[in-house]
Amino acid sequence: MNYYAAPVRDIRFVLEELLAFGSLSLPGFEESSPDLVEAVLEEAARLAGEVWGPLNDTGDRQGCTRHDDGSVTLPDGFIGAYQAYAEGGWNGIGVSEALGGQGLPEVVASAVQEMLHGANMALGLCPMLTAGAIEALAHHGSEEQQAIYLPKLVEGTWTGTMNLTESQAGSDLSKVRTRAVPSEDGSGQYRLFGQKIYITWGDHDAAENIVHLVLARKPDAPEGNKGISLFLVPKFLVNADGSLGERNDVVCASIEHKLGIHGSPTCTLSFGEKDGAIGYRVGEEGRGLNHMFTMMNEARHKVGIQGIGVAERACQHAFAYALERVQGRSPRSGRSDCTISDHLDVRRMLLSMRARTDALRALALYCAAQLDLARHASDDGDRAAAQARVDVLIPVVKSFSTDQAVEIASLGVQVHGGMGFIEETGAAQLLRDARIAPIYEGTNGIQALDLAGRKLQRDGGAAIESLIDDVEATAAALKESVEHAALGESLAGGAADLRAAMAVVLAAGADAEQGADAVQAYATPFLNLAGHVLCAWQMGEAALKASAAIAEGRDEPFYRAKCQSADYAIRQWLPVGRAQRAVIEAGMESLSAFDAAAH
Amino acid sequence: MNYYAAPVRDIRFVLEELLAFGSLSLPGFEESSPDLVEAVLEEAARLAGEVWGPLNDTGDRQGCTRHDDGSVTLPDGFIGAYQAYAEGGWNGIGVSEALGGQGLPEVVASAVQEMLHGANMALGLCPMLTAGAIEALAHHGSEEQQAIYLPKLVEGTWTGTMNLTESQAGSDLSKVRTRAVPSEDGSGQYRLFGQKIYITWGDHDAAENIVHLVLARKPDAPEGNKGISLFLVPKFLVNADGSLGERNDVVCASIEHKLGIHGSPTCTLSFGEKDGAIGYRVGEEGRGLNHMFTMMNEARHKVGIQGIGVAERACQHAFAYALERVQGRSPRSGRSDCTISDHLDVRRMLLSMRARTDALRALALYCAAQLDLARHASDDGDRAAAQARVDVLIPVVKSFSTDQAVEIASLGVQVHGGMGFIEETGAAQLLRDARIAPIYEGTNGIQALDLAGRKLQRDGGAAIESLIDDVEATAAALKESVEHAALGESLAGGAADLRAAMAVVLAAGADAEQGADAVQAYATPFLNLAGHVLCAWQMGEAALKASAAIAEGRDEPFYRAKCQSADYAIRQWLPVGRAQRAVIEAGMESLSAFDAAAH
Repeated sequence: MNYYAAPVRDIRFVLEELLAFGSLSLPGFEESSPDLVEAVLEEAARLAGEVWGPLNDTGDRQGCTRHDDGSVTLPDGFIGAYQAYAEGGWNGIGVSEALGGQGLPEVVASAVQEMLHGANMALGLCPMLTAGAIEALAHHGSEEQQAIYLPKLVEGTWTGTMNLTESQAGSDLSKVRTRAVPSEDGSGQYRLFGQKIYITWGDHDAAENIVHLVLARKPDAPEGNKGISLFLVPKFLVNADGSLGERNDVVCASIEHKLGIHGSPTCTLSFGEKDGAIGYRVGEEGRGLNHMFTMMNEARHKVGIQGIGVAERACQHAFAYALERVQGRSPRSGRSDCTISDHLDVRRMLLSMRARTDALRALALYCAAQLDLARHASDDGDRAAAQARVDVLIPVVKSFSTDQAVEIASLGVQVHGGMGFIEETGAAQLLRDARIAPIYEGTNGIQALDLAGRKLQRDGGAAIESLIDDVEATAAALKESVEHAALGESLAGGAADLRAAMAVVLAAGADAEQGADAVQAYATPFLNLAGHVLCAWQMGEAALKASAAIAEGRDEPFYRAKCQSADYAIRQWLPVGRAQRAVIEAGMESLSAFDAAAH
Repeated sequence: MNYYAAPVRDIRFVLEELLAFGSLSLPGFEESSPDLVEAVLEEAARLAGEVWGPLNDTGDRQGCTRHDDGSVTLPDGFIGAYQAYAEGGWNGIGVSEALGGQGLPEVVASAVQEMLHGANMALGLCPMLTAGAIEALAHHGSEEQQAIYLPKLVEGTWTGTMNLTESQAGSDLSKVRTRAVPSEDGSGQYRLFGQKIYITWGDHDAAENIVHLVLARKPDAPEGNKGISLFLVPKFLVNADGSLGERNDVVCASIEHKLGIHGSPTCTLSFGEKDGAIGYRVGEEGRGLNHMFTMMNEARHKVGIQGIGVAERACQHAFAYALERVQGRSPRSGRSDCTISDHLDVRRMLLSMRARTDALRALALYCAAQLDLARHASDDGDRAAAQARVDVLIPVVKSFSTDQAVEIASLGVQVHGGMGFIEETGAAQLLRDARIAPIYEGTNGIQALDLAGRKLQRDGGAAIESLIDDVEATAAALKESVEHAALGESLAGGAADLRAAMAVVLAAGADAEQGADAVQAYATPFLNLAGHVLCAWQMGEAALKASAAIAEGRDEPFYRAKCQSADYAIRQWLPVGRAQRAVIEAGMESLSAFDAAAH
């Protein structure tokens, strides 16, 4: 069943009204007029709704197939859908014009990505990984590497992969063992030997070539992070004229049997089963991990966006079912043949799904807008301030959006009752698909450490303090309106809780003895609290904007619904997040003393 | 992978120390000495761990197969595992001796069921449904029906099913359309025509016969609930001497392709495709729904128990992985090859899983003990008081245990990182299996309405008030101990929150105009709050008992771990539940105004 229609109106509300996109006018984005952006969103919505969306359950049912020769075939229709995407120029929308892209702002690219992931998360992973490869090469590749690989990657004729994980090296990449042996002929080539696991879109039949970016170490490299370099290993070697040469010595050894995203081939790649996979170093020797992290930050934001896409689809699925399923008697109308959307407990589930999805989208696109400012604002100070916000927002967007997406998809199953548990209904697939997002691209626990450990401690909380100041300003504005005074009270309480919790986490971090340990204990509760407060903040802004629109006589049903979302998000959802202050203040001594073996 | 070892020690802690089982000495249970119970638990643990548990992933991988003739075959090994269970006499442990069972207390039967569901939830459903059929016949069957069917059902040679749902009649059973046409020959037989869906273990090859209990209505019956009667329809007709006769006109038309519990055949059953399925009315005409609800109450408790079984298995799985997976550097020891159980964020997940599972088990077994008292206490007042508690506890145990089981299983996936998303690991199956429990046997939303609507309103909150009094007594005892004073404060706060929230829900219910509607809006948050407070209460008792044991020099590692569970449950988990008071006090006006079509 295909319930996905891209939420263009909701996205435009965020871009145009919450982010005042039209008035951003950043240097470099002069051509991104609201009209152009609207046209882009409408076109993307068509691709997502008409081409990608209907293949979502095909991908799930069929999955990918690996053949004895190591080749991998995709589910029916995926090649055509990917090609429609590449031929439409979508792969380059967020890439700068200098690299052959269209140079649209990140905030627009993110909105388009949400649509594509909502339509078909498994397929959406392919360009997501390619985007990472483009970033890596754009920042760290040699001129020659850029000249050969970037045009093909940007147009999407070739796709990219990230080869990080090995069986003993997951969250801890310092343990990477794949070897890169320099050739002795002075060509600068390397021969790679080793096995990488969990390689998303590691092999497939939708593109002419696949560009693998691989973490490996030279035979004489030191142990640990500093011995790791980044290498480019093409599936087919590329001749000097850009034409494809021989098949390189990298093959798909197996594909994983996963809980979800069946349409995305997750491969184990073997490098150098014969005489070594030919590769080329990207960037500096020993700086492989740093180079990877350049692009990981952005990939993390995109995983958050992915969660929101799936959450949106789960909403649409649940709303459609609740509006058509007749069951029970309405206490209000007394009708014995009401739809279940008439039952308040079902409404509670629907509104909870919708309010959270609205809030997560607003925060993720706010973060994207800050990314644009960090890159393009004309003033140095503005760029630095935006970057500081981006740094703390990205782990929140990644973790909080994906954790919530799992809960939203699970609620979507619940709205369907028994039908939700039947695979053909499609609700269960969304839960299965969503469940990967809190795991990959750095687990949500790692994101929380990044926030509460690195990001919070290094600036003494300054970036979050400045966000809290903004939250308080929004709370004050809400309190001044008769309609939203209660929202203002609740939001102000959330801001105070976040400030108080931050003080605890900063104090723990300052403890020279056990700082890192103590901070780790608080990290996830702190991120959860921050996510709730920041999402509520965005919904506070949404309430103010929506009320203003209603006062102006604009589209009342739409804006009334936004007010309801905001009311639910701030008064029924935020309190659950605020409880994390008490969790933090209760202390975490029990975790230090905890002995898993005794339980 | 089979990580399941039945948690006998933890269960005995609840039975012997929290529930002081040995000192219960109820009439009728004189033979259930602690020694006998211990032996029963040890034997059940062996069956669960050695026979049922290893088949859990076989069931998931193979699923059930329906053949063209309508017959259904089970996964490899299931028949043998079921027969080992039946031959061991396990099917009758909770059935009274008068009916051929062993008459063990409900609290012991529940503990055994937790083990079996933990070992293999899909297989555990078969006896769970049979138990429902036994209950229904024991309460409402004629002497002849009891004589023919009960012995076989109690020994497990035959199994039972519940045929309630039809495609238009799910949560609202008043819409049942299956027809039961009385024969004109005075035999008292009926011919049934219609289709039932979602019939758990509706057909299979593990038993000689299957006894279907079916809701249907006579052709002249009134519309709605009052026209519905209960019928017994055997798969094979039974001759007067008890031998099996002809195949009845009921066939499995299809089996469902489900998210989880693949080893449990969920059937669509067609009654009367030829000349009608021969059936016999059970109990009074027009009282079919009431008769069903007799046994549903108990079945709901068992679904809660089922959730706990799966949660326990998820804990064991996650602990085992965390104790063996080497990754990252420990901030404490500085070792770069620590297991992930050394990272505090992983410990937080593990302790959260363990503490919640401990707490849910304690509450569910407390409820079972109240069931025993309600049936067997010698004093009328004691029985009534226990029944009043059972009535409010059952919806809490069903909903809260199953919602939490989904979260616990999902955390279990997260602990495994990327491995958690790979099906072979087994963690994902537990999430998929657990996800049905909040849906069937009355959705969790329906349980919440039962609690906040029917149960709470009819006694003006008296049963919950009396539970809160007990919570406060435990909180006071905790406050008096130096070690647990902080737990006492937090628990007392939870009790106060529950009292305050109850006042809001009672006031809403008293509003003649919109009572039912308003209560429905509050129902789920109220149940969630009640679940947290009551679980925390049990863990408060656990902390007191565990500290006493440590003071006596008994098994310190075990009791220390229980103290850690209690500390986490009361100080880190309860606050999240307490937030539901704020959710309720914020009011639910937005739900009344909510228009799903506008979102």
